[in-house]
Amino acid sequence: MSLAKVRIVLVGTTHPGNIGAAARAMHTMGLSRLYLVNPARFPCAEATARASGADELLAQAEICTSLPQAIAGCRMVFGLSARSRNISWPALDARACGALTVQEALEGEVAIVFGREHSGLSNIELDHCHYWVHIPSNPAYSSLNLAAAVQVMAYEVRMAAMAGASPPARRPTESPPASVDEVEGFFQHLEQTLIEIGFLNPSNPKLLMRRLRRLFFRAHLEIREVNILRGILTAAQDKVKG
Amino acid sequence: MSLAKVRIVLVGTTHPGNIGAAARAMHTMGLSRLYLVNPARFPCAEATARASGADELLAQAEICTSLPQAIAGCRMVFGLSARSRNISWPALDARACGALTVQEALEGEVAIVFGREHSGLSNIELDHCHYWVHIPSNPAYSSLNLAAAVQVMAYEVRMAAMAGASPPARRPTESPPASVDEVEGFFQHLEQTLIEIGFLNPSNPKLLMRRLRRLFFRAHLEIREVNILRGILTAAQDKVKG
Repeated sequence: MSLAKVRIVLVGTTHPGNIGAAARAMHTMGLSRLYLVNPARFPCAEATARASGADELLAQAEICTSLPQAIAGCRMVFGLSARSRNISWPALDARACGALTVQEALEGEVAIVFGREHSGLSNIELDHCHYWVHIPSNPAYSSLNLAAAVQVMAYEVRMAAMAGASPPARRPTESPPASVDEVEGFFQHLEQTLIEIGFLNPSNPKLLMRRLRRLFFRAHLEIREVNILRGILTAAQDKVKG
Repeated sequence: MSLAKVRIVLVGTTHPGNIGAAARAMHTMGLSRLYLVNPARFPCAEATARASGADELLAQAEICTSLPQAIAGCRMVFGLSARSRNISWPALDARACGALTVQEALEGEVAIVFGREHSGLSNIELDHCHYWVHIPSNPAYSSLNLAAAVQVMAYEVRMAAMAGASPPARRPTESPPASVDEVEGFFQHLEQTLIEIGFLNPSNPKLLMRRLRRLFFRAHLEIREVNILRGILTAAQDKVKG
């Protein structure tokens, strides 16, 4: 079932009770794959207490030291974000995210990423997300508890999975979709090349890479396309180095 | 707005922390009217702590000694129930309850009633409810935390209230879409640059440009993005020419 392909990633969680409550929320909706990026305290009795019967999810949780590690191998990454930033980015509400998660999980791994209790996800972390997701809320008080946000998202994923609608028409592809780490490798290669050709000043990068990430994310690159693009970059580097 | 007509009724809540977390969940979704039937401990510092900024809802909460007192004056009452009982009864899932709540709240007061943490609502209490409501969940583990259940229901009420009032989501853009001739100019520039860096052999071009066109067409380039991409190409050309 598609729910087995869905990772819930909690980044930098401060309160272990929230980790336990998030695990319980996941379990009630049939999600089981919990990833913890640099939790402040884990494992912890408080997490186990709040998990209230979902402690198996805690025992099987993957502990990671970076967000890229937690999303490695995923074909699509969603990041919860309540804030607006300087640059616009593809955005979805929770319901649309649930539908897209189920659709993408037919083909591969999907991650839904939640930030810190007080500060959310950093801009750099949000750069790893194909879509920013917001839970519609009271504009005067939009501060959902972390586990409550996990509950709503997990609920929407389950509702979408249960809808059982036939998958929508898909665009024809020539090769499989590139994974997030393959695309990340391309972005690093691109950035390095832009520095070498003098287009990007590493001491004053501005929003250039963010704009380019946004552009290529929209295209949903295939493996073959990543290989072509990296071939171009290598050719340019060789030529510049003479 | 119809949300002002919706009461959230918590019956016999044991843990004051759950009352606070439920108040926070309500406030995030714009619900404000909390009714407490025979809470074990209230008011309580633990409730206030978990309310996390929604403490005004706690201060204004109505304390009742019976469910009939809490639902007096309502035109419709929904009761959360995970259990099946001997007798069948009109039942709704959370989403349908949200829609019906908003519809009925146009005409009068509506109550959504939540039972005790471990035993839910009694049969006598469920008899007061026009509909029994279930939150779709994992059959093997359907035990939502009380505040998590309030969060999901409040979310569905808000989503129903917002439905039809909000325009469909559009991808945010930073600049207008590029015209076909602007994109064509980019493709010519790209092809010329690929020749100059030795990646494309003009006497044996194969399908390279077609693949790149397909990729960039999918991204629906904006004017600003075309300018960035052409800036990169020009920088590469300058560097190659030395």
